[in-house]
Amino acid sequence: MSTSVRIGVFDSGFGGLTVLRALLPRIPSAEFFYLGDTARLPYGSKSQTTVARYAVESAQRLESWGAQYLVIACNTASALALDAIREAANVPVLGVIETGADSAASSSHTRDVLVLATDATVQSHAYAQACAARGLRSIERACPLLVPLIEEGWTDHPVTRQVLRIYLDEALATARDHGYALDTVLLGCTHYPLLRAMLEASLPDGITILDSAESTAQRVHQQLEANAQISNGNDSSDINLARCHFFATDSIGKFRTLGSRFLGQPIEHVELIDLGG
Amino acid sequence: MSTSVRIGVFDSGFGGLTVLRALLPRIPSAEFFYLGDTARLPYGSKSQTTVARYAVESAQRLESWGAQYLVIACNTASALALDAIREAANVPVLGVIETGADSAASSSHTRDVLVLATDATVQSHAYAQACAARGLRSIERACPLLVPLIEEGWTDHPVTRQVLRIYLDEALATARDHGYALDTVLLGCTHYPLLRAMLEASLPDGITILDSAESTAQRVHQQLEANAQISNGNDSSDINLARCHFFATDSIGKFRTLGSRFLGQPIEHVELIDLGG
Repeated sequence: MSTSVRIGVFDSGFGGLTVLRALLPRIPSAEFFYLGDTARLPYGSKSQTTVARYAVESAQRLESWGAQYLVIACNTASALALDAIREAANVPVLGVIETGADSAASSSHTRDVLVLATDATVQSHAYAQACAARGLRSIERACPLLVPLIEEGWTDHPVTRQVLRIYLDEALATARDHGYALDTVLLGCTHYPLLRAMLEASLPDGITILDSAESTAQRVHQQLEANAQISNGNDSSDINLARCHFFATDSIGKFRTLGSRFLGQPIEHVELIDLGG
Repeated sequence: MSTSVRIGVFDSGFGGLTVLRALLPRIPSAEFFYLGDTARLPYGSKSQTTVARYAVESAQRLESWGAQYLVIACNTASALALDAIREAANVPVLGVIETGADSAASSSHTRDVLVLATDATVQSHAYAQACAARGLRSIERACPLLVPLIEEGWTDHPVTRQVLRIYLDEALATARDHGYALDTVLLGCTHYPLLRAMLEASLPDGITILDSAESTAQRVHQQLEANAQISNGNDSSDINLARCHFFATDSIGKFRTLGSRFLGQPIEHVELIDLGG
């Protein structure tokens, strides 16, 4: 191959950087364009129409920069707007709902799964449908306070532990009422991996916690390889950020600070762009 | 007067309805246009440039509907964008920071005031400047989790009490360190009046809690009377919503549900508009 494949990664904010973090070592030859629509976040409390409009604008912008493959790393946008994005785009588009449901299907023995997500994602029932299509039963639980708590940096704070306890107790009670034997919790929001330690301590033994970052990265790799857009290379530990271009629609400073937390390493350069909204 | 004066009231979401609630009985002859930019809320975590752009678009839309007077009921927009709005508008514009500081100046005996507000409002130091201009010393405290907790409906919930306790303890300790004798707490976000009962129970005795809704309504009345845009009438208990037109940029259903909580009565009709963002 003469040039490296260009992959566009889209999220409403910073959470999608957990997906980019999984993509970087897996596809070392690619060039990444990450767009966070920070001026209009959060998507998780907004309507389908609005989320679709915002997500389509962002996807089109990524394509205009030459992206040959789009990863919708935002669960809410994947749940509410994937069809709209696919219709508007001229390149393959992958959302995180299907890859998340795939990893739950691989992992669960009881076939009963708990999905934690934003209000909008839960109301769309996109995860319930994707799980059902894979022979899984699911309980979807909206956790609207977790994103603001994580963005406040309270990832190891008694208040967050208490809020999580309330959400989990209600969800586990619903599971008992339905006679479900949960063995898998699927994190249906890219912010939630930052609470993995707290979740592990708060859940009963024998429950596996999954997020869609790894399974998404794996799927992107498979598809690009199948399309001969990448050579059959090995994974690399190279996570050289020189291959990454970061764009945000609001404050660069905040993107660098918060984003570095999600990416797991410092982000130096972010470009401010205007989506006209 | 042959026709009633048209007043535009702007907020990023629903909180400004507490200001409209104070305006309605005070100016019974007016027609009100309330615009909530719900598709792009919250403003409180965003940058000055973005907030100014959004607020100017909303103000211009209100003026295009014939508003002869604009009330910026959003503290963040008042703090970050009042100059930009005044420059773009052709009618008088009133923000809630100055009226809030006025009511603190009238109320405080010790001249030491605590301001609770969003991140963006605190970082702008608009309240500190407005207080200093009135001979008040102030401590500004950002309370970023209160808006999501209020929107979750947790206005009488142990988690909210605990979060408020953390914010207040830190603020009161700062006051002690500075040798300030606080006797007034100014609510610098239109969501916070919904936590008035909890705040009263959480603060030491002898502290007065103020919000800017009443002082804003009073100032609007004075200015319209001075401009002879309203006759010298009495206040009315008439809060007939037939005089109100509600507009939102996102979900109508959510506006009706959440908005009714802030207005204190059911909102029937809301029109969805597109600000192009």
